[in-house]
Amino acid sequence: MTGSPEDAPEGEVRPKGRYPKGVARRQEILDKAIEVFARRGSQKTSLRAIAQEVGVTHAALTHYFGSLEELLVEVYRESQHKPGPERPLPPDASPAMAMSISAEANREIPGLVQLYSTLVAMALEDNHPIAHSFATERFARLRDDIAEQVEQLQASGHVRADLDPVLVAALVIAASDGLQIQWLLDDGVNHEAALEMLDRLLRGI
Amino acid sequence: MTGSPEDAPEGEVRPKGRYPKGVARRQEILDKAIEVFARRGSQKTSLRAIAQEVGVTHAALTHYFGSLEELLVEVYRESQHKPGPERPLPPDASPAMAMSISAEANREIPGLVQLYSTLVAMALEDNHPIAHSFATERFARLRDDIAEQVEQLQASGHVRADLDPVLVAALVIAASDGLQIQWLLDDGVNHEAALEMLDRLLRGI
Repeated sequence: MTGSPEDAPEGEVRPKGRYPKGVARRQEILDKAIEVFARRGSQKTSLRAIAQEVGVTHAALTHYFGSLEELLVEVYRESQHKPGPERPLPPDASPAMAMSISAEANREIPGLVQLYSTLVAMALEDNHPIAHSFATERFARLRDDIAEQVEQLQASGHVRADLDPVLVAALVIAASDGLQIQWLLDDGVNHEAALEMLDRLLRGI
Repeated sequence: MTGSPEDAPEGEVRPKGRYPKGVARRQEILDKAIEVFARRGSQKTSLRAIAQEVGVTHAALTHYFGSLEELLVEVYRESQHKPGPERPLPPDASPAMAMSISAEANREIPGLVQLYSTLVAMALEDNHPIAHSFATERFARLRDDIAEQVEQLQASGHVRADLDPVLVAALVIAASDGLQIQWLLDDGVNHEAALEMLDRLLRGI
């Protein structure tokens, strides 16, 4: 009952991220979990299996992340923050091109695309509030960001002025997500060419 | 190879649905499972839970469907065959409009959209060959059908002639799938308006 302090401070129910040492340990587990996912995708996503691969006890994983759902969300969030190779976006890059570039980064880590699909599927079910918040907030934030970008591109004449920026944003995100899935299942699908075509359509050329 | 000809056509290995009585019972279970899904979505998709709701033993379910994955695929396939309300498609309906109409039918059964997302997420993992075949074949068939429709619409001047029909097909399917997911998570997303916009872009108006 008296676990080592950095692993399970006494009496705390959800102490994650409370003490510097705990924060460091949590981050260490997370980094390892990201590696595991990048290597193998999400085909064996039980907490126990991940704990085993990461080399921590199941109890420690549960202690730091609570549930598989929380760990999955954290792994995805954290992976997205990792700096990718430099891919400078041209100043007149349309939203579809921006999504294409970010999708390209994801495709280098197939496990990440699988993980994202799993999270979205979980989000659509009723009993996964954390995946639901994650997906809902991610889509809302992306729509806002891209809609703003669209307005600027409309002002500079790079996107058709008669299009609703919010609808364009929703369409571009949907197209990028959906094309990525089709490409993963069949690499004959030219994800990039389809987004470039959407790009041209949005520019009105 | 000596099964009754109408029930187990040559080349079918698995004995399920081999005898008329078995076929009827299998269909009965499937119909019940579809009802269960339509009512509750896929939030509790263990075979045991479904068996309980459907009112059959777990052994019987396993006997007729083999695995949860197979049952899910069958439930989705079968639901798609059910005749929906009449929605005549205008002769010059663009591909995006056609997808919008089929998506509208799905939205009336939210459980079906969840089930579809779950199947696609399973398909992206490594250990679900049945979901993988289902999703891969569904996308390939849809792309073929829609690409053919696009060619006809290009010939009649209803879709821009400079677009690659196969890329248009992949884009329209991706947009429809992705927008449906965004709408399910946030009903402020105007799925239909976004597809209508894509429609206009494809027509070049």
